[in-house]
Amino acid sequence: MTQPAPSTALQLRSLVRSNGELEVSLQEVAVPEPGADEVLVRIEATPINPSDLGLLFGAADLGTLQVSGTAERPVLSARVPDKAMKAMAGRADQSLPVGNEGAGTVVKAGASAAAQALLGKKVAVIGGAMYAQYRSMPAAQCLVLPADASAADGASCFVNPLTALGMVETMKLEGHKALVHTAAASNLGQMLNRICLKDGIGLVNIVRKPEQAALLREQGAMHVCDLSLPSFMDELTDALAATGATIAFDAIGGGRLAGQILTCMEAAINRNAKEYSRYGSAVHKQVYLYGMLDTGPTEVVRNFGMAWGMGGWLLFPFLQKVGPAAAQKLRERVAAELKTTFASRYTRTVSLAEALTPAAIAVYAKRATGEKFLIDPSRG
Amino acid sequence: MTQPAPSTALQLRSLVRSNGELEVSLQEVAVPEPGADEVLVRIEATPINPSDLGLLFGAADLGTLQVSGTAERPVLSARVPDKAMKAMAGRADQSLPVGNEGAGTVVKAGASAAAQALLGKKVAVIGGAMYAQYRSMPAAQCLVLPADASAADGASCFVNPLTALGMVETMKLEGHKALVHTAAASNLGQMLNRICLKDGIGLVNIVRKPEQAALLREQGAMHVCDLSLPSFMDELTDALAATGATIAFDAIGGGRLAGQILTCMEAAINRNAKEYSRYGSAVHKQVYLYGMLDTGPTEVVRNFGMAWGMGGWLLFPFLQKVGPAAAQKLRERVAAELKTTFASRYTRTVSLAEALTPAAIAVYAKRATGEKFLIDPSRG
Repeated sequence: MTQPAPSTALQLRSLVRSNGELEVSLQEVAVPEPGADEVLVRIEATPINPSDLGLLFGAADLGTLQVSGTAERPVLSARVPDKAMKAMAGRADQSLPVGNEGAGTVVKAGASAAAQALLGKKVAVIGGAMYAQYRSMPAAQCLVLPADASAADGASCFVNPLTALGMVETMKLEGHKALVHTAAASNLGQMLNRICLKDGIGLVNIVRKPEQAALLREQGAMHVCDLSLPSFMDELTDALAATGATIAFDAIGGGRLAGQILTCMEAAINRNAKEYSRYGSAVHKQVYLYGMLDTGPTEVVRNFGMAWGMGGWLLFPFLQKVGPAAAQKLRERVAAELKTTFASRYTRTVSLAEALTPAAIAVYAKRATGEKFLIDPSRG
Repeated sequence: MTQPAPSTALQLRSLVRSNGELEVSLQEVAVPEPGADEVLVRIEATPINPSDLGLLFGAADLGTLQVSGTAERPVLSARVPDKAMKAMAGRADQSLPVGNEGAGTVVKAGASAAAQALLGKKVAVIGGAMYAQYRSMPAAQCLVLPADASAADGASCFVNPLTALGMVETMKLEGHKALVHTAAASNLGQMLNRICLKDGIGLVNIVRKPEQAALLREQGAMHVCDLSLPSFMDELTDALAATGATIAFDAIGGGRLAGQILTCMEAAINRNAKEYSRYGSAVHKQVYLYGMLDTGPTEVVRNFGMAWGMGGWLLFPFLQKVGPAAAQKLRERVAAELKTTFASRYTRTVSLAEALTPAAIAVYAKRATGEKFLIDPSRG
């Protein structure tokens, strides 16, 4: 039998005050009583994804970070620069829970058969507020983990796996035959590489360091282009010509890279062009920015004709667009290949309190490839 | 009866040599004999549109312009900067005719009834090579002008009118209810303003000078935002909130304006937002770049959430997308409202040779709002 749940437990909260102060703290909150169709999940593993950092720290300048409180109940504070407060207006003075996804054990269940069937099971869940010791969830939204999977194995069942699959599906839906991915040595990037190798889809991996290129090549990646090399643009053009990739998913966002990908796509297309078109090729070239590793401006040198698009891409609008049946098929694939195609690796597992130490933040807030933290809230 | 056509006549040609030299000249070419379903049009009016300048001068630096030849047969030359030659590769060493559209008199016709029916008529035509004294065209592609219209009235029947109508159709097709237009005091912009006033569609006009704002307001424009005012962003946000415009057509391309429009759209949407969304509003915001008045990089400060898109927009792919029946309906509207909604104004009418004088080029190559030239090739 599982341990009974306490009446109160810890939840991580992020608050941006309208005076520009960020405060991140652990709050003792009431553990919810599951409704008839709900279960209570003791969260045992929840990743710190780049997509969590925006909510966690807002637009605060982490150079101004200060810690008060105790080691068990740290309180972080930092300043949000005045010019960034406009973007924070919608969340000002609201204490918000954080954490997109996680996994753990169902310790209490509502009266319905579906809820009762989950009691004692390890499940993966998504829906926010996962940086907490307990989370109540509709039974229907729980993904039961395979018997041999730990909570850590199932912690990243949704965001990265469905994002990687969503990129491949978007590529197909929009009529492209191969794709480009930046920050390609990330957990997500490695996952996408495994999907593309398994499914026989052309993938051009863009990385920023030779060791990242080596890592992906060891994992069988066929096209890896290293931004740090002077030959980057030529190698990218060669890889684009070889694969026919005309859609890219860019995690970086700022700087020139998104535009350079379009430039190289056009150059690759024009290698086979038969006659001059003053508006550039008629082949549509698309770059989706799905991340913000560089929050600076995107600079686009428009030397790739007129058949191009750039835009934001997010998992949840994608899932809404394809509808519940298609989304369910993707979730089933994730569960079936959880310990192979969709395996995640973490550099460290920390408690909620440890996640709020400056030493930990200095590592995970860099969003550096290869540094991925897992929180185990059951450690306090 | 119309004058018989000569056996040879003038045609303007643009040539970028692979050594980086641009040469623009008037060539004496054979006047084509129309086929059975074709007519020969004596071109009497053909506009210099911004969309013609790219083919006319390539990527040449007009600061290096030199003139040789005679007053009747000038030969222009200029240097294409080395770094721009990559983009010229597709047209290198090919002598290309120029001029998207024009109007004139049918002076010869093929044997078919359709062709014969056009003999002596004034028609508008599109298809390139209009900067010439004669142009052979399929009879089916000629738009017969109303009896009271001159060639000058019909010279700009296609590019601007169909572009303006195409913007409104794209707005509707993509589910938006009002639109934004930049460089809005241009001939095209004034036309779009007349369409929107007539059809009751919300239009936000962005201009760069107070006198352009005044001109549009005199023509009944309801929302005019002047980039030169310090209050520009606030006024734009107000106009976007008032109209609900979430799609923009930008003629400028370079610089920050396209991104600023997205920023203000998001701010206008968030005025009525009920709860905080860390990814910004879910309302899709779109900016299409259809022109290149500023050929510099596009700089996008991404502070407008993730539901956005930016891309190229061109008339011909749009017409292909909507199909021939829809395109024909738009053409019929242009013919019916040629002297009202779709009237163009020109600052000067020049001969082919005069169009190649440095004094004329200095004016029309600036692409300045309010300066529009018409060529009458029948003047030589």
